Amino acid sequence: MIELSRAILDKNARLAERARGLFLGREVAVMNLVSSPGSGKTTLLQRTITGLGERMRCAVIVGDCATDNDARCLRGTGAPAVQVTTGTVCHLDAHMVLHAVEDLNLAETDLLFIENVGNLVCPAAFDLGEDRRVVLTSVTEGEDKPKKYPAIFHRADAVVLTKTDLIEAVEFDREAALGHIREVAPAARVFEVSAKTGAGMEGWGAYLEECVAGKSGVPA
Amino acid sequence: MIELSRAILDKNARLAERARGLFLGREVAVMNLVSSPGSGKTTLLQRTITGLGERMRCAVIVGDCATDNDARCLRGTGAPAVQVTTGTVCHLDAHMVLHAVEDLNLAETDLLFIENVGNLVCPAAFDLGEDRRVVLTSVTEGEDKPKKYPAIFHRADAVVLTKTDLIEAVEFDREAALGHIREVAPAARVFEVSAKTGAGMEGWGAYLEECVAGKSGVPA
Repeated sequence: MIELSRAILDKNARLAERARGLFLGREVAVMNLVSSPGSGKTTLLQRTITGLGERMRCAVIVGDCATDNDARCLRGTGAPAVQVTTGTVCHLDAHMVLHAVEDLNLAETDLLFIENVGNLVCPAAFDLGEDRRVVLTSVTEGEDKPKKYPAIFHRADAVVLTKTDLIEAVEFDREAALGHIREVAPAARVFEVSAKTGAGMEGWGAYLEECVAGKSGVPA
Repeated sequence: MIELSRAILDKNARLAERARGLFLGREVAVMNLVSSPGSGKTTLLQRTITGLGERMRCAVIVGDCATDNDARCLRGTGAPAVQVTTGTVCHLDAHMVLHAVEDLNLAETDLLFIENVGNLVCPAAFDLGEDRRVVLTSVTEGEDKPKKYPAIFHRADAVVLTKTDLIEAVEFDREAALGHIREVAPAARVFEVSAKTGAGMEGWGAYLEECVAGKSGVPA
């Protein structure tokens, strides 16, 4: 089992490098969004893309075991969205991403969001050639998720605490949660947002603009 | 990859049958609880075990990638709780369960809860020898989870909709959610509970008592 996993991960690592090169060549900043099911990835993306729409060209690849609900929702923003239906597969891999981008026009894209399958475990192991790995966790899930799923938080470039409008309703201990995030992902940028009320969306949007600025006009 | 997965699942199927035989021999009713991270498995179990404590002897096996937080919480109910730490493994398997029960006294247990790793995808494929597979989904995750994760809902004997005290705060569409559950898991028993307020806990408790009654004094 271990040897086979290594073979799968080695193959993924090669394809992820191909994707990374392609994204570099097309000057597209790529964010890999991972979280539990129902943490609010799609809602955050809807609001984010609507907010950034004037300033940059966004596109989305969405992974789900079944349904194309999320891609249909996201197309409502005007951005192209490609649904990848994974069946019983619990994560997106670089091969799926390379196929999905065939249905996008990367030359006319500044920022590509990859909305991974809802799963806080398995996507941790699969590089997709992204620039930033972003882990979302909602206040309704409790404070302890970074400690219970350390592999995925440890490799995060950014952590987005979502649904902050519900902090009081769920008696969420914000300080404890931020402490856990800092402990497991000390270098990650942390954002606290409510896609419902719009709170915290400016900081998150500025971060994305930085990522896009860093990717355009690069040498090579 | 397909052949290796089959070998892993074949081995798991054999060990799951051994566990099933052991649970039959010890007359222990076994519930396999699966859900997203943060759906409220531990809180539901705390309240359930406290409520049932006088009428039956409960025990718990808890799976998590890291930490023994949940086992420690659950021991507060007085029930024995064994933590299985899975590292990067995204589900419990029958081998882990057979090891974990070595630390329990099954002869003095009526009802064993297995709290699986928080993951709506991978645990679907792993039989643990349980009597009932119970899928939890919280109202905060939205209405569409049965359609997006059909494999795990399709095999559920019961679906527990949790955190119903938050229905209004998250504008949850109860009828739509129940419709999706009925479509994907038409034979499943459905419970709507709030472990916080206690709403709906009687029906869930009665279901567990039925399961326990069905397992005691069985022939063979």
